[in-house]
Amino acid sequence: MEFSSKLLERAVNEMSQLPGIGKRTALRLVLHLLGQPESQSLELADALKTLRSEINFCKKCHNISDHAICEICSNPHRTEEIICVVEDIRDVMAIENTSSFRGLYHVLGGKISPMDGIGPNDLNIESLVEKVKAGNVKELIFALGSTMEGDTTNFYIYRQIQDYDVVTSTIARGISVGNELEYTDEITLGRSIINRIPFVASLKS
Amino acid sequence: MEFSSKLLERAVNEMSQLPGIGKRTALRLVLHLLGQPESQSLELADALKTLRSEINFCKKCHNISDHAICEICSNPHRTEEIICVVEDIRDVMAIENTSSFRGLYHVLGGKISPMDGIGPNDLNIESLVEKVKAGNVKELIFALGSTMEGDTTNFYIYRQIQDYDVVTSTIARGISVGNELEYTDEITLGRSIINRIPFVASLKS
Repeated sequence: MEFSSKLLERAVNEMSQLPGIGKRTALRLVLHLLGQPESQSLELADALKTLRSEINFCKKCHNISDHAICEICSNPHRTEEIICVVEDIRDVMAIENTSSFRGLYHVLGGKISPMDGIGPNDLNIESLVEKVKAGNVKELIFALGSTMEGDTTNFYIYRQIQDYDVVTSTIARGISVGNELEYTDEITLGRSIINRIPFVASLKS
Repeated sequence: MEFSSKLLERAVNEMSQLPGIGKRTALRLVLHLLGQPESQSLELADALKTLRSEINFCKKCHNISDHAICEICSNPHRTEEIICVVEDIRDVMAIENTSSFRGLYHVLGGKISPMDGIGPNDLNIESLVEKVKAGNVKELIFALGSTMEGDTTNFYIYRQIQDYDVVTSTIARGISVGNELEYTDEITLGRSIINRIPFVASLKS
């Protein structure tokens, strides 16, 4: 792509570094900004700059937060005894939307993935183990995606804390509520038969 | 969507103002930036800010340019006698890529579209008519997209300049090179039969 303007070329190149945004899409986005009032571009630029330079992570759960301790960790109505282990802020937001969980979170910041060069030391695992060692935690819920990397990470953490007095669980995998059996993949259906739950228990949720 | 951070929320909101980018995609992009070195976010922010505040438009053809007169208009090897009328810089880039055109461009900046509140005065039409009146232009090539708005804009300009001594043409519509007839839509195929060209002429291109 040849540009008539170095300024335009630079903006398109920077924009196309974002995942899923190619050169053509980047050009479309940048031209859209040029067609809008100047304030919109400046607001976007400032929001990105401020975010990156002023962003904080909660000292307890490592979630993105504007304060040293995030709103969830500082909420007195939530119990410190149950910790849900998640990958990033999107998982926190998804679980919070269900209003089904009153414990705290621990955001790992990723999953162990040797292929991507992400080892245990790149994630917030040590501080989680410290929490368990301190003895206040009664249950850890693993809520990572059920991929090879997720399972590896779960198992790595489990090995670190298995000698302590803490219950570990993973969120239930099974058929989505409202889904037909015939459209469910075999692995999910197979697991949901193996991990069946008492009928009376299923009535409660 | 509820955010644990106002900074994050602001960045996501600004990002999701871009066309085709919803809240979820915006969040994905912003989280990606947070995972990258700080310099990448700052570079992107600065590129957008600089683009918007320092952008120039060529005084002759209204294309985006870093100089008062763009490289195409100031190229002595191109003829001023043929002007190709296009909507925006993407069309200029597309035509330049073909290396088939040695005239100049005139960038309208859009198409007449009453539905979107875009009238003739919102576009760079007056300066085009002035160029024709000045008498140096021998041919105008209309290269707008063949939509209702494109046709309206072509016709509006044609009415303004029909009394002057200038040839008007539009780029050829027809079956794409290499395409099968059976997969071509009826309108394009119908037009390509009506606007057929002498076989000998087709051998030259």
